[in-house]
Amino acid sequence: MGVYRDLGRDFDEWFDWIIREAEVYDYGRYPVKGMGVWLPYGFKIRKHVVELMRSLLDSTGHEEILLPILIPDGILAKESEHVHGFEDQVYWVTHGGLAPLDVKLALRPTSETPLSYLESLWIKSYRQLPKKYYQVVSVFRYETGATRAMIRVREVSTFKEAHTLHATYEDSERQVVEAVEIYSTFFRELGIPFLVSKRPEWDKFPGAIYTIAFDTLMPDGRTLQIGTVHNLGRSFTIAFNVWVHMPDGSMDYGWQTSYGISERVVASLVSVHGDSVGLRLPFKYAPVQVVVVPIPTGPEEARREVAALCERVTEELRVGGVRVALDDREDMTPGDKFYYWERRGVPLRIEIGPREVREGSVTVVRRDNRSRVSVKLEELVRAVVDIGEEYDEAIKAEALEGFGKRITRISDLGEAERAVASGHIVEIPWCGRVSCATEMEIRVGGKALGTPLRTDEREVEGLSCPVCGDRARSLMRFSKRY
Amino acid sequence: MGVYRDLGRDFDEWFDWIIREAEVYDYGRYPVKGMGVWLPYGFKIRKHVVELMRSLLDSTGHEEILLPILIPDGILAKESEHVHGFEDQVYWVTHGGLAPLDVKLALRPTSETPLSYLESLWIKSYRQLPKKYYQVVSVFRYETGATRAMIRVREVSTFKEAHTLHATYEDSERQVVEAVEIYSTFFRELGIPFLVSKRPEWDKFPGAIYTIAFDTLMPDGRTLQIGTVHNLGRSFTIAFNVWVHMPDGSMDYGWQTSYGISERVVASLVSVHGDSVGLRLPFKYAPVQVVVVPIPTGPEEARREVAALCERVTEELRVGGVRVALDDREDMTPGDKFYYWERRGVPLRIEIGPREVREGSVTVVRRDNRSRVSVKLEELVRAVVDIGEEYDEAIKAEALEGFGKRITRISDLGEAERAVASGHIVEIPWCGRVSCATEMEIRVGGKALGTPLRTDEREVEGLSCPVCGDRARSLMRFSKRY
Repeated sequence: MGVYRDLGRDFDEWFDWIIREAEVYDYGRYPVKGMGVWLPYGFKIRKHVVELMRSLLDSTGHEEILLPILIPDGILAKESEHVHGFEDQVYWVTHGGLAPLDVKLALRPTSETPLSYLESLWIKSYRQLPKKYYQVVSVFRYETGATRAMIRVREVSTFKEAHTLHATYEDSERQVVEAVEIYSTFFRELGIPFLVSKRPEWDKFPGAIYTIAFDTLMPDGRTLQIGTVHNLGRSFTIAFNVWVHMPDGSMDYGWQTSYGISERVVASLVSVHGDSVGLRLPFKYAPVQVVVVPIPTGPEEARREVAALCERVTEELRVGGVRVALDDREDMTPGDKFYYWERRGVPLRIEIGPREVREGSVTVVRRDNRSRVSVKLEELVRAVVDIGEEYDEAIKAEALEGFGKRITRISDLGEAERAVASGHIVEIPWCGRVSCATEMEIRVGGKALGTPLRTDEREVEGLSCPVCGDRARSLMRFSKRY
Repeated sequence: MGVYRDLGRDFDEWFDWIIREAEVYDYGRYPVKGMGVWLPYGFKIRKHVVELMRSLLDSTGHEEILLPILIPDGILAKESEHVHGFEDQVYWVTHGGLAPLDVKLALRPTSETPLSYLESLWIKSYRQLPKKYYQVVSVFRYETGATRAMIRVREVSTFKEAHTLHATYEDSERQVVEAVEIYSTFFRELGIPFLVSKRPEWDKFPGAIYTIAFDTLMPDGRTLQIGTVHNLGRSFTIAFNVWVHMPDGSMDYGWQTSYGISERVVASLVSVHGDSVGLRLPFKYAPVQVVVVPIPTGPEEARREVAALCERVTEELRVGGVRVALDDREDMTPGDKFYYWERRGVPLRIEIGPREVREGSVTVVRRDNRSRVSVKLEELVRAVVDIGEEYDEAIKAEALEGFGKRITRISDLGEAERAVASGHIVEIPWCGRVSCATEMEIRVGGKALGTPLRTDEREVEGLSCPVCGDRARSLMRFSKRY
């Protein structure tokens, strides 16, 4: 039985409770506001998520690097739009030991500026391009408003930022498509539903031509931005003199893209699959995929047989490549153990008592629906993996279904307001004027997420902007946002 | 042919040259002193090294976590010996955006203080102990003197720090033994020769009861500290109120150890195995273990056959679990390719020309001694792995032999001075007095490394301290040091 019955209503409390209770992330106790601690279990979840991202990037020609954490004032300030977008939010290192530094140093808010500086040293010719770098690092934002564990933090400690350089604009556009594909695969793998939107002009990354964003929906009905892809054009290559020898012998500035995700991925993984009992992690990416719990009853010998079978099953699963834990703690009842591992989102539980010993089988219980299946020992590993895969399909389908139900196309702004208030994303026909989108934001009580990546003209055929009445050119999405 | 013939004499230049030339680490060009960039190839070397360390720690019950990078002034200052050891070297964050912060924040120089603070919240009972945490992070030291790529940097970007907590002093002592074993295994795996010394009192970690250090010898005859293990006693648990419920019902402070390594491991890996041509990486940990180079000669068809066999061999090795690269660049001669991959320390090169096609074989060339072996295609993977293992044994033995020759036991201080000047570590009988060790440091022109972990009394039987003439109680080691 969970503490929080209605995740929609109690989401904030549920989230704070489960990340501490399941030992994911310790937040609010570290004595610097907006900075949390990855606990051992949470670190393992984070590791699986990061490794998935690494494998997607490595297999598409991205190279991992590691830049210094500090950026000198002069470098950060070189691209003016960029620095204006960040200057209120930058932490500054001003002293080394007891002495003031000659040049103040920023804790990186993101790495477009130092990397562009380095690219001006590293890249000479179109033959070296495209170049796709990435790093997984901490970045810092001095958020002045309310902070939130993993969602709005001052140290983003799981920032995967990719930066690419190209000889032509066309190639940078292809890279944007690749990035959107990589992120789509990534979120699908994790079963995190998402919408891809082209952010409105007024909400793009400082310095970019345009920004594409991935949003998911949290149980409280607010969307969370979980990934962004920017076409940076030549803002930074011009500012940093990233000149490239082109095939025709000329010299020209390169073209860049960048794209990032953060620990918000873990926050959404926790939130979109979780239930009132706790986490429900995907089998494929769970630190512990299966827990074996002995149900010892009867005489001493029967108990010994149960213990022996538990160990044998654990070992077989381990050898079979399953991440398995045996919970043989003696000071806890089986019921308490069930709850302990359910809270931690372990996908499958194997119960073994005297009956299982007698029958040469185990009982496999799924975390999502508590369905129980008896599995013969001869089929153990195969059956467990199969059930794990079914479980993954089920929790993904559940998340996707809930998400789909909450996306609504509406022309009436009154209806849209009610939908947004009840936790929906609405898509409203839009003429393309900033003033109309601003008016819509006010009237629907939500923020603009942007337009679908490609608007099929037929989708808006015959529709008009509910603010000005002019012909709609696309749909604009609105929701409550984090 | 390498640029630097005598690594001993030209070591500084060779090191700077090879880490840039082999694209390991870009240093001296990033516009913050003492901060470098891990380039893609270097990042991969670093990754293999870090993964080896992780596997050793994970398999001995260590849990990976991740703490914030910033430590508030008040926390850092809580253990007084500790803060005095670091206060001249700490970078301070004083501003968020344009406004000064209420409390200044240190970029962590190491994490004993914040972790002890957290342990006071996390740990309640001896039942939770021992607790072994570790993290792999950046730490910062505002070095005021000369900096050196990977060796003396202001951002140590590959700091693996482990922190353990115990119910008893005896258990913390066992942990020190385990840590020394783990590090010994680690350096042996990488073929990095080392001496383990108990550092003299005046050179221990600020706040520790004692410090044990691992030193290797660089080609220029200076020792480099590549790992340290500290028994911290209760300095930090008392300062931070890390109270633990003990089995007898009492409450008492816990006992701690900590131990760390850094990118100096990569620096020494590069240096102890490298030669005038470039890197020589261990087969087991090389990012690229084998490079396949086509030697196309003769008519078009023969060339096509060579190319086809190269692809087949590359694929077979890849499927066989070997990290292999095929260098089929058309604008480079085979000779230039040889040099390119030798510089990067790739252990084995496979050459394939028309003769190999005819004979159904490949030619395998070892990076260390350039020995050539013809290998039948049927035996490809097995033979390559065997040759790789032989190569590893050979480079390790070579490094160990060179190291062993440079450790000398000497009683005469004049001889000791000459030995230290020529790049040796000397072991001098020592009475145990600080004043005598200080005198020895001056007279031999080296720094004290400390005493062997266990001094067998027979080893110093009948020996006397060359400064005061009293009976020697142990050996004290001296060398030029980084």
